[in-house]
Amino acid sequence: MTIREKIYNIIDNEKNLSTRLFDAFMTTLIILNVAAIILESHQSLATAFHQEFFAFEIFSVFIFTIELMLRIIVADIHYKSENYLNSVIRYLFSFSAIVDILAIMPFYLPMFLAVDLRFIRMLRLVRLLRVLKIGRYNKALKAVAKALGQRKEELFLTSFVGLVLLLFSGTLMYYVEHETQPDAFPNITASLWWAIATLTTVGYGDVYPVTTLGKFIAGIIAFIGVGFVALPTGILSSAFMEQINRREQEEKEKEENIDEHKEVCSCPHCGKEL
Amino acid sequence: MTIREKIYNIIDNEKNLSTRLFDAFMTTLIILNVAAIILESHQSLATAFHQEFFAFEIFSVFIFTIELMLRIIVADIHYKSENYLNSVIRYLFSFSAIVDILAIMPFYLPMFLAVDLRFIRMLRLVRLLRVLKIGRYNKALKAVAKALGQRKEELFLTSFVGLVLLLFSGTLMYYVEHETQPDAFPNITASLWWAIATLTTVGYGDVYPVTTLGKFIAGIIAFIGVGFVALPTGILSSAFMEQINRREQEEKEKEENIDEHKEVCSCPHCGKEL
Amino acid sequence: MTIREKIYNIIDNEKNLSTRLFDAFMTTLIILNVAAIILESHQSLATAFHQEFFAFEIFSVFIFTIELMLRIIVADIHYKSENYLNSVIRYLFSFSAIVDILAIMPFYLPMFLAVDLRFIRMLRLVRLLRVLKIGRYNKALKAVAKALGQRKEELFLTSFVGLVLLLFSGTLMYYVEHETQPDAFPNITASLWWAIATLTTVGYGDVYPVTTLGKFIAGIIAFIGVGFVALPTGILSSAFMEQINRREQEEKEKEENIDEHKEVCSCPHCGKEL
Amino acid sequence: MTIREKIYNIIDNEKNLSTRLFDAFMTTLIILNVAAIILESHQSLATAFHQEFFAFEIFSVFIFTIELMLRIIVADIHYKSENYLNSVIRYLFSFSAIVDILAIMPFYLPMFLAVDLRFIRMLRLVRLLRVLKIGRYNKALKAVAKALGQRKEELFLTSFVGLVLLLFSGTLMYYVEHETQPDAFPNITASLWWAIATLTTVGYGDVYPVTTLGKFIAGIIAFIGVGFVALPTGILSSAFMEQINRREQEEKEKEENIDEHKEVCSCPHCGKEL
Repeated sequence: MTIREKIYNIIDNEKNLSTRLFDAFMTTLIILNVAAIILESHQSLATAFHQEFFAFEIFSVFIFTIELMLRIIVADIHYKSENYLNSVIRYLFSFSAIVDILAIMPFYLPMFLAVDLRFIRMLRLVRLLRVLKIGRYNKALKAVAKALGQRKEELFLTSFVGLVLLLFSGTLMYYVEHETQPDAFPNITASLWWAIATLTTVGYGDVYPVTTLGKFIAGIIAFIGVGFVALPTGILSSAFMEQINRREQEEKEKEENIDEHKEVCSCPHCGKEL
Repeated sequence: MTIREKIYNIIDNEKNLSTRLFDAFMTTLIILNVAAIILESHQSLATAFHQEFFAFEIFSVFIFTIELMLRIIVADIHYKSENYLNSVIRYLFSFSAIVDILAIMPFYLPMFLAVDLRFIRMLRLVRLLRVLKIGRYNKALKAVAKALGQRKEELFLTSFVGLVLLLFSGTLMYYVEHETQPDAFPNITASLWWAIATLTTVGYGDVYPVTTLGKFIAGIIAFIGVGFVALPTGILSSAFMEQINRREQEEKEKEENIDEHKEVCSCPHCGKEL
Repeated sequence: MTIREKIYNIIDNEKNLSTRLFDAFMTTLIILNVAAIILESHQSLATAFHQEFFAFEIFSVFIFTIELMLRIIVADIHYKSENYLNSVIRYLFSFSAIVDILAIMPFYLPMFLAVDLRFIRMLRLVRLLRVLKIGRYNKALKAVAKALGQRKEELFLTSFVGLVLLLFSGTLMYYVEHETQPDAFPNITASLWWAIATLTTVGYGDVYPVTTLGKFIAGIIAFIGVGFVALPTGILSSAFMEQINRREQEEKEKEENIDEHKEVCSCPHCGKEL
Repeated sequence: MTIREKIYNIIDNEKNLSTRLFDAFMTTLIILNVAAIILESHQSLATAFHQEFFAFEIFSVFIFTIELMLRIIVADIHYKSENYLNSVIRYLFSFSAIVDILAIMPFYLPMFLAVDLRFIRMLRLVRLLRVLKIGRYNKALKAVAKALGQRKEELFLTSFVGLVLLLFSGTLMYYVEHETQPDAFPNITASLWWAIATLTTVGYGDVYPVTTLGKFIAGIIAFIGVGFVALPTGILSSAFMEQINRREQEEKEKEENIDEHKEVCSCPHCGKEL
């Protein structure tokens, strides 16, 4: 076994103990990174532990950079191709590689480019993408992505209906409430904010109708709309369940196939299985 | 192919490239119309870009009018009938034609009728119906309409139960809270507003019980009621899923029928398929 | 046909035109009664139209009393029994008769008993029971009652879990927030009010945690709790759907039975249907 | 029958009348305990009925202690083992025994240990665990625990996606709203509180975006997020329903097996049942 195969076994082989240790270490590091991003947003902590946060950031980026380099080195084992360069390119355009690169970019970019502070602050948000690196180590995002893909059309249909409903509710309420509450419903944009809060049943309570007609219409919208906006959830939920059931059934059928392999009973006339 | 058939192919044939381009153009125009309606409600924008909004409105109505006329011209291709007039009448009473006419009406009506400002403002709301013109180009609304039709009875039943629950909750809370909060619960109408906000779980927080008895009753109502009001969503959701499943199964069966057409195995005694 | 049979046909026979007219009249009267109760709660309307409301109440009670008397007269046609008195008693203890009696009671009771004003106001609430009289004319309440009955055990189980969760959430939040917000969380009873508003996702916003620990715990409670409290809805919804599916399948099977009655194919060895 | 067997019959045998009476008594006592904990949190009641609350607490702990001792005495009947000590140890580490011990611990602990007041107050919360003692007498918690166990993986997957969504929503909103509302969104921790209230649709209304960009992003988050956070509910609900259906089907199959035992019809060629 070459060193490159050994590296591959550690960073990508699911059954190995060393892989599990590597995964546990990376997951811990990622969670600590998320914690650091949250804690650093507290002004007092950011000032008091400025150096510690910076040191941890350097350490994290160092580890993530090494990981990325190792993955590039062994790219041809996972992405089989005619030549090595081809494999590396195919790897670099995979979803996980893009996440890996974006996750460390906020650290390296200011070194090469003169960027203003506003942009740097936005890059901090990109740092949060590190949490998606966990995605490689579990199948949650994959399962959800698959469920989304399966019901793509239905989700689009119901979302469209939801959007139309949102549009009509918001516009209607604007014409009804604008005169009485010019501050709460100054324009349709503001009115759409009310419609979203109502149709998703969040109901912050910062804007709500006060006229009798407005309340009457809002009541009908709430009753009808809540159902339509909840439709995508039901569809997504069912897609998710179907996926799980199918997997279970496939496993079951496999077992049954093994069990009953020798006992199939065929039709006496055509030889087809009964 | 006559010119009329060419027109029909462009505005109604789903497979044509020219139809797709026409659809894309119309959809873009409709979305821009919706955006214009929203932006025009901002007082500052309406004043600053008064001429631009008006020009865009004229352009839009011009296109929509031409579209309507073309559809009338080729009405007899889609709506086959004994004579041309009959086809046109049948088309004019179709859902999509009514939407088309209503969508441009707010522009033409003030030309022929002396209407007051209040009515014109309401007509602006009718302009939003233009978004329903997209409905022609996708099957979202149709699928939802079908799901609604299939579960008509169940939706009516649960809605009735929901309304009764709403009525009892609102009236009960009025008698409990009216004396302590005469401003928040001045009459049953106001109390029904609280009941709607609670049963749909929107919960704006503009009115809520403050007495211990009121809170106790509100708690029970919230727990019981939430379930009943959510029932229609569950029913609608299941109707939607059933429709999708049926379509998938039909497609599957078609494929299977083609595959197994020559291999059917009949019962040795009655000739029926096993 | 005797007069009594004619009366029975009008008030109870579903297929008759006269029954439908009677039903439409009664349903209209009931809806107007509900409207009257709501409108009468508006102080200004109650004062201005005092006589009209009173006249309508007398008219309604008069009609409802006659209806009740007619039903008593023909009780033996619906409730077959050895003697007439037995039938009447069986009718009087039926759900619909109790609703009918309770619905007119608030009018007659003060005539015979010296009741204080507080009690009379509560009787007004009983007047709302008139809406349940519609229950006789449609099957909504019956279907829901059946669904509730079918899932009785499961609903009880999940409600119990929901209650335990409510209790723990409320008590925990009391100990966490009481010191910081003695006004919002003065005791566990008040804290339970917060828990109900959170677990049902109503979220009025009158009470909410302000401490970091309180917010952290509330976040976890919201995430976990929301699912558990929504369980009864899911169960009720599925019971409702199952009931509908079963009915549809039964109808389908009936049709199929009629179709295939003569074409059954039995096993050549034991005579059982294949 | 020995005394120990008699005791066991009373406290653990489901079919006995004496067991039912014992269960009813214990359940009543537990409910009264919960009521006492809630009422004692009212400062006025705690002061006025200090002695009564204390007396009831002593009485309750006395009963619960006797119950625990009886269960230890008869442990070897339920937990069959080589020797008595082994059975007792196995019982003491069962879930119900741990709940029993924790439920009375807050009373005994201060006797043996010098504990500060803060700790005693926390112990009061532990007293609430007494409500879980009811868990022994019904199968609600068991059914829910089983449903949770069955869908463990799916619940974990969707919870992970929900958490990632929460993290991104909170962080994004912090960067968007922090400058305009430094008090409402001082750091990401506070922003996460907003995200939880929004994604679970609780929507207290204590924090919400005010900038147009913030409202736009919040609207999209609410629409997308609501569905994902509701996923675990759908999954849990389906697991619960599946469990119920399976149980019903098993009972049905049992009945059918009994009915058709003598009438099975086997294939004429291989002897397998048709």
